[in-house]
Amino acid sequence: MGRQKVYLEKLARFFQIRNLLLRQALAECLGTLILVMFGCGAVAQLVLSGGSHGMFLTVNFAFGFAATLGILVCGQVSGGHLNPAVTFALCLLGRERWRKFPMYFLFQTIGAFFGAAVIFGMYYDALWDHPGCFNVTGPKATAGIFATYPGRHLTLVNGFFDQIIGTAALIVCILAIVDPYNNPIPQGLEAFTVGFVVLVIGLSMGFNSGYAVNPARDLGPRLFTAMAGWGVEVFTNGWFLVPVFAPFLGTIIGVMVYQLMVGFHVEGEVRDQKEGTEQENVRLTNVHSNNDSKEANKEMH
Amino acid sequence: MGRQKVYLEKLARFFQIRNLLLRQALAECLGTLILVMFGCGAVAQLVLSGGSHGMFLTVNFAFGFAATLGILVCGQVSGGHLNPAVTFALCLLGRERWRKFPMYFLFQTIGAFFGAAVIFGMYYDALWDHPGCFNVTGPKATAGIFATYPGRHLTLVNGFFDQIIGTAALIVCILAIVDPYNNPIPQGLEAFTVGFVVLVIGLSMGFNSGYAVNPARDLGPRLFTAMAGWGVEVFTNGWFLVPVFAPFLGTIIGVMVYQLMVGFHVEGEVRDQKEGTEQENVRLTNVHSNNDSKEANKEMH
Amino acid sequence: MGRQKVYLEKLARFFQIRNLLLRQALAECLGTLILVMFGCGAVAQLVLSGGSHGMFLTVNFAFGFAATLGILVCGQVSGGHLNPAVTFALCLLGRERWRKFPMYFLFQTIGAFFGAAVIFGMYYDALWDHPGCFNVTGPKATAGIFATYPGRHLTLVNGFFDQIIGTAALIVCILAIVDPYNNPIPQGLEAFTVGFVVLVIGLSMGFNSGYAVNPARDLGPRLFTAMAGWGVEVFTNGWFLVPVFAPFLGTIIGVMVYQLMVGFHVEGEVRDQKEGTEQENVRLTNVHSNNDSKEANKEMH
Amino acid sequence: MGRQKVYLEKLARFFQIRNLLLRQALAECLGTLILVMFGCGAVAQLVLSGGSHGMFLTVNFAFGFAATLGILVCGQVSGGHLNPAVTFALCLLGRERWRKFPMYFLFQTIGAFFGAAVIFGMYYDALWDHPGCFNVTGPKATAGIFATYPGRHLTLVNGFFDQIIGTAALIVCILAIVDPYNNPIPQGLEAFTVGFVVLVIGLSMGFNSGYAVNPARDLGPRLFTAMAGWGVEVFTNGWFLVPVFAPFLGTIIGVMVYQLMVGFHVEGEVRDQKEGTEQENVRLTNVHSNNDSKEANKEMH
Repeated sequence: MGRQKVYLEKLARFFQIRNLLLRQALAECLGTLILVMFGCGAVAQLVLSGGSHGMFLTVNFAFGFAATLGILVCGQVSGGHLNPAVTFALCLLGRERWRKFPMYFLFQTIGAFFGAAVIFGMYYDALWDHPGCFNVTGPKATAGIFATYPGRHLTLVNGFFDQIIGTAALIVCILAIVDPYNNPIPQGLEAFTVGFVVLVIGLSMGFNSGYAVNPARDLGPRLFTAMAGWGVEVFTNGWFLVPVFAPFLGTIIGVMVYQLMVGFHVEGEVRDQKEGTEQENVRLTNVHSNNDSKEANKEMH
Repeated sequence: MGRQKVYLEKLARFFQIRNLLLRQALAECLGTLILVMFGCGAVAQLVLSGGSHGMFLTVNFAFGFAATLGILVCGQVSGGHLNPAVTFALCLLGRERWRKFPMYFLFQTIGAFFGAAVIFGMYYDALWDHPGCFNVTGPKATAGIFATYPGRHLTLVNGFFDQIIGTAALIVCILAIVDPYNNPIPQGLEAFTVGFVVLVIGLSMGFNSGYAVNPARDLGPRLFTAMAGWGVEVFTNGWFLVPVFAPFLGTIIGVMVYQLMVGFHVEGEVRDQKEGTEQENVRLTNVHSNNDSKEANKEMH
Repeated sequence: MGRQKVYLEKLARFFQIRNLLLRQALAECLGTLILVMFGCGAVAQLVLSGGSHGMFLTVNFAFGFAATLGILVCGQVSGGHLNPAVTFALCLLGRERWRKFPMYFLFQTIGAFFGAAVIFGMYYDALWDHPGCFNVTGPKATAGIFATYPGRHLTLVNGFFDQIIGTAALIVCILAIVDPYNNPIPQGLEAFTVGFVVLVIGLSMGFNSGYAVNPARDLGPRLFTAMAGWGVEVFTNGWFLVPVFAPFLGTIIGVMVYQLMVGFHVEGEVRDQKEGTEQENVRLTNVHSNNDSKEANKEMH
Repeated sequence: MGRQKVYLEKLARFFQIRNLLLRQALAECLGTLILVMFGCGAVAQLVLSGGSHGMFLTVNFAFGFAATLGILVCGQVSGGHLNPAVTFALCLLGRERWRKFPMYFLFQTIGAFFGAAVIFGMYYDALWDHPGCFNVTGPKATAGIFATYPGRHLTLVNGFFDQIIGTAALIVCILAIVDPYNNPIPQGLEAFTVGFVVLVIGLSMGFNSGYAVNPARDLGPRLFTAMAGWGVEVFTNGWFLVPVFAPFLGTIIGVMVYQLMVGFHVEGEVRDQKEGTEQENVRLTNVHSNNDSKEANKEMH
């Protein structure tokens, strides 16, 4: 046992990465890999089994809890965004530095790419056994296992609107969950709550085009399918641009809605109380200042 | 980054609303919007996909977890009622001021109205593609996506009774969850528990007329459908009055049942102990009074 | 507002019950009412809708989360047993007084009776609309909404064994959850965990006869159906004795299995450590005894 | 009551096992019994009811929450591995002693054996009533209730790969959950989170061969079926070796992926901070050392 520990510590020191941003990007990569592996795996199970081993609800559960698990794996290191739209929202609000955004986007997309690759390997036999093997369109198409495609009823405009609403809903809920002034849930349960958000979005916003609401989750697997045998057909129609660009627009709207209706006011209340306390303190020539701020803090809660 | 923060704080100060009641009403509005958006979205997904992307269970999950998310978004600001019946129950028990009631009712209804509007926009193409497009009745009707309509087997009397029982059951559970003397769950989990209550009500009380148990959730979307193309037909038969008035009667019954069977007794026990301690303290001529009350508090728990 | 508070406190004092056992029995009554109302409501929704508004999984969810809610409503007052088998198990282990057992059993059965009555009233129209209206047997029977009946493949011996195993499994899990020496979950989550136990039992042990595993949950609603129109036929075949008596046998087996495989050892470890500390303390002539026991406590955890 | 307590304590002392490893092995045995009893019970309910009382989703839920309950029952005593692959992973990382591995493997397999036996007894009548009674292969086969068998589309190579990926995914998530340096969830919720991991694996990786990802869970019930009437046919084709050996390979890969992408870096960060603090302390000739390390600890979090 002693020798094993020495060897393990040597390994740990050898492989340790000291660059914080790289470490965070790697963690995001693994988290997004887990999200896409479990999520797309559930779609694969549904499609390839012809419905015997899954249904749309199982896909919703899988994406929801996969988001939870992905956040748990990387959250302490990188914040567990798993989604460039989330990174974008936090950058907009000044809670993350802008230089993180391209790095996270890149590694999230790489993670999603490899998540799709794992599922491709796992269901390789089942895929060849499936009538619609490498079809991108048609009733037996399998490209939808990895990336999203619009339903037959959907126009491009409505599809764009669909992704905007879905992402805005996601961002409003996530901002409420992580708002340091709102603080609605016990610490450590953020990952589970975000999982419920993703689940609910799937239950109610998944019919139009499969609720990507995440540029990396859609782009990475789409690139993989293009390389793995479905060909460039996965990029035709221009649909692939919708889940890449619409979510960022949805993020802006989500941030605005949450801040205007809840965020600015809870933040402002805290600021008002602080300033009130400070003025009072000045008036009291700094006597009892400590007690006052404590009381103010109590009143706030 | 520095300049962004300055700009963000300016924005925050500009948009901050200092009137507490208005701030709370706005938060209720957003919370109810989220409840109805996700809940009715799930019904839309079920109806418009013809069952391929949903079933009654997915609607139950969506309404349950949508209630959780709605409460999380606004709970710290407004209490997260999302339902005039809940506001009514807390007013009856003297835990909220009566003047909050009309304000909350109004903004909850407005939130529900816009929640329905978001779903209408999101599924606009799918709605036009659906055979029963703007029908209020018939097998392919779509009005049931937004507001509730009675099943064919249901008489008005039984329907009224159905809404009374459903709301009473909701109120009994919510009162237990938020009772300061009963206090059964860890702080911060109230929203999740209320979500389970809504889920269970849907699982077992949803067959008669779709478990509105919430005047705002039903009235807001019904008004929206009347304006968006379904017409005044949504108000015929008088059914629309049932989910507006029966829940308040159910609230009264729920409050009475909970208070008579659990609430008054746990409250009374705490009061008895306090008074006992006070008398003892008087007898001891106020010696050790501090310690005694601490001990009494310990015994209570 | 002031006058309302005065009036409310008068009401509270008037209705307050000071007898602890009666208060606890009333709480158990309400908790079991909630369990049966939501649980049997889900069966009613499944049976009466002909499968359009439910499936076996929704019944499992409803009974599981109904158990959670029932425990939350009464748990702080009465312990939240909702099941005479649970009361029996805790009496066997000396954690509850034996005189509680008949009182709890009676009020749990009364609660289950009224829970069935509420569902009967709620689905009165749907019941008359159903082809098998008041049938106890046959493919369209509705008696199974309230009480349990054996599947066609089930012999009485296997049915007895089924109830014993189901209850034993329930008791093993509940004992682990509430064992003060094992203590596996954060305080306040017991109700949720018991809900999961009931859910899992339904998912895997519900095919034979509908997993009563609770004498009160089965007997109360069966008495109600006998009175409400299904007649004494609900008592023929002697099946009704199985869910009344088998669970108590299952309780004994469950208590033995848990105590022999886990319970006695975790309890013994704590006792050993205490005794070890005491002996040491004696040797040290009671110096540092306080510190030692603290350390021993730390080692235990 | 007094006499009962004395008698209970005598019993407790008589049956108490003082050997720690044996006590832990017994607890693992009960935990794995619960996992397999509830998990395989759900498969039995699905297969024997012909789909009326279950579907693939119910099996996923049952295995997931059965894992949660199994861990809750034995977790405080033995760590709640329930799976030789988990024990293997923790041994590899030096967190458990290697001599635990064979003991745990043996008792986990024994627990799984008896878990299958309980379900066999419970559904004895239903099994004889089933057309495919004791068939190992064919459309009505029942051997799949207890052990896993490959789908018709699956080659042995892909099946091996399937078990490797499934176990690697399980191990990555479990390592994140129990990593003392990552520590993403509140203490006491590990069992629930592992249950979600098992649920998600079932939702997305269950189509190929039923996601054993656990040598004991597969081998124990397979041995039971060989003895209970299905015969040695359950061992033909060599498939039975895949869920016994592939999971250990998957464990090695899972440990490597997690440690290289997250584990080594969070561990290294803590070590760096400690060492930094120590050097600083030396420089300050041990003044304020206590405060510094406290601050370092804070920075770490």
